[in-house]
Amino acid sequence: MTVEPFRAIAISRLAHRLKTEGRSIIHMEFGQPSTGAPAAAIARAHQVLDADAMGYWESPALRERIARLYDQRHGVAVDPDRVVLTNGASPALVLALTVRFRPGDRVALARPGYVAYRNTLRALHLEPVEIACGAESRFQLTAAHLAALDPAPAGVIIASPANPTGTIIPDAELAAIAEVCRRRGIAIVSDEIYHGLSYVGPTASMLQFAPDAFVINSFSKYWSMAGWRLGWLVTPAPHTETARAHIGNLFLTPPSLSQHAGLVAMDAHDELEGHVRTYARNRDLMLDALPSLGLRKIAPPDGAFYIWADIGHLTDDSLAFCERMLRDTGVAAAPGVDFDPVEGRRFIRFSFAVSTDEVQEALDRLRPWFAALG
Amino acid sequence: MTVEPFRAIAISRLAHRLKTEGRSIIHMEFGQPSTGAPAAAIARAHQVLDADAMGYWESPALRERIARLYDQRHGVAVDPDRVVLTNGASPALVLALTVRFRPGDRVALARPGYVAYRNTLRALHLEPVEIACGAESRFQLTAAHLAALDPAPAGVIIASPANPTGTIIPDAELAAIAEVCRRRGIAIVSDEIYHGLSYVGPTASMLQFAPDAFVINSFSKYWSMAGWRLGWLVTPAPHTETARAHIGNLFLTPPSLSQHAGLVAMDAHDELEGHVRTYARNRDLMLDALPSLGLRKIAPPDGAFYIWADIGHLTDDSLAFCERMLRDTGVAAAPGVDFDPVEGRRFIRFSFAVSTDEVQEALDRLRPWFAALG
Repeated sequence: MTVEPFRAIAISRLAHRLKTEGRSIIHMEFGQPSTGAPAAAIARAHQVLDADAMGYWESPALRERIARLYDQRHGVAVDPDRVVLTNGASPALVLALTVRFRPGDRVALARPGYVAYRNTLRALHLEPVEIACGAESRFQLTAAHLAALDPAPAGVIIASPANPTGTIIPDAELAAIAEVCRRRGIAIVSDEIYHGLSYVGPTASMLQFAPDAFVINSFSKYWSMAGWRLGWLVTPAPHTETARAHIGNLFLTPPSLSQHAGLVAMDAHDELEGHVRTYARNRDLMLDALPSLGLRKIAPPDGAFYIWADIGHLTDDSLAFCERMLRDTGVAAAPGVDFDPVEGRRFIRFSFAVSTDEVQEALDRLRPWFAALG
Repeated sequence: MTVEPFRAIAISRLAHRLKTEGRSIIHMEFGQPSTGAPAAAIARAHQVLDADAMGYWESPALRERIARLYDQRHGVAVDPDRVVLTNGASPALVLALTVRFRPGDRVALARPGYVAYRNTLRALHLEPVEIACGAESRFQLTAAHLAALDPAPAGVIIASPANPTGTIIPDAELAAIAEVCRRRGIAIVSDEIYHGLSYVGPTASMLQFAPDAFVINSFSKYWSMAGWRLGWLVTPAPHTETARAHIGNLFLTPPSLSQHAGLVAMDAHDELEGHVRTYARNRDLMLDALPSLGLRKIAPPDGAFYIWADIGHLTDDSLAFCERMLRDTGVAAAPGVDFDPVEGRRFIRFSFAVSTDEVQEALDRLRPWFAALG
């Protein structure tokens, strides 16, 4: 089985080395906010540290609060029993896949996509069925793709907003995907980790169209708590008991402190919406500037905090390109090969989850560098 | 596939309900210290909370410190690169199993044993080969057991000190197990989560006898940091790259704060050895008192913090027995069915990782209760 390492890690290592050598580095290679947890969450963590022995624990209040989120955001009723708390989105995916599929099952997913989907499927002896998605579908799976697969796969992983492109699947298309999956018996795993980070209005949850979907989310993106390792899986009711048995055996509980802090973070609306406004400004700056860098083939991201840029006119080795750009300008970006093993050699991904000053500085450094390339 | 829930959770739920009704409860049902993290670790966590944005992160210093532990405790050199940090011992087991085995592989383990071994094997479509281990081998696997298996299993899970019995495999037997495994090509996964908690002198690591063993450990027991969700896997060098690829895809990083605090905890020697002295006192009290309760068939634990008691003269339904004992006395213990699906109906497990006062109080309540049963 081939489970590939993240190439972005090589870029990040180089970035850190250059930094220790005194270089000024702008980290746009990793998919995480540069901000910390909301202030109220940190204050709560200080309190709990001094008051609680912190044994194995699953917060009933947090499960209820998360269930309420689906009502608030999407008008969907979710029984808190269906919410399984996890150590982030990655274990939530492992949980969904082990609960729902058996070795050899075929699971469809978009290419480009988050590399861990493909690799986790392989590690669990499931067969990834990658569907090449180009600019014409804004790099997203469609109902037509799923209807055309012969035979029908056992499952599909949907990601909206997506990594690495930030594109959002429109509501009508989500409904059509749900309908095809219902008709063909395809189980849906919907990764909604970038929900809350949208620049084009509210994002629908797959639960609005497919009540039996497995839905993954995490505190790592919108709630700005990546290193706290807290996420969840909404399980369809018939699978909830199995999911609880799996979590107890495979993972036990998420960090106690993170659960206490996460509960408070869910009410830190003003601070978190402030981050979204920053990302929106950063996105505007990037979209404004990239054409002048010669990067004209981009899919403007609807959500998340990424720009997926076609650099095919400049290179067919995005990893070497990222290394050179980093050494020359101090701007780190992720090579596309992490997200698309076929076409990724001509793409790079910028994360704009940094400060607006950093985006401006990065663009100031990149402008002359790209001009010199051309 | 049958992945069973922990029955102890039902006991714990009842215990918490009785507590809200005003009853005095002594929690001896779960395998975790009642103490919190070392004071220095908590102080460090306060510092980091205010200073670090806490993104995805793996602490190189912690990996080095853990590698050094094997030198200090066992005189074994471990390259820090072989140390993979995890969200506790459970994901470390998932990691070892996915890296080393393929669906359908047979993996031997002792019965009684930690229920998650069996269930995690099943969830990953591996086949548990349970070896009935009785009082004659102090409930532990032996080299003779492994030599007699036909065909040889692909792997074996060793646990010493063991859960639920606390028994330790003697050094000579570990060496013999390593030899049989080498000869028969059986991969070893050694769960050393209770290392540091021994009442009979130093405990050997399987790495002393089988340098190619996968070794699991965690901060949840000796370091008293269960809810911090931090553990590790020592991978054999040929599998390290695969293990790193799996961890990056299946789990990402452990909690950042826990890594900072864990590093400091590893030097909190005096406080942690104080816990061990408490457990030693508690163990003496229990071993002293249990025969007078009519509980004469016990394996005195060499390590960990458990007593595995045969109650076959009183019941053949340990779950119902634990419920009744809890309702009548407020003392919660774990039913044996969690650890042995065959013989466990006539066993219960007490955890003595509570205060000495609580152990004394529990025994004061249990004495008349058991007397009335007889």
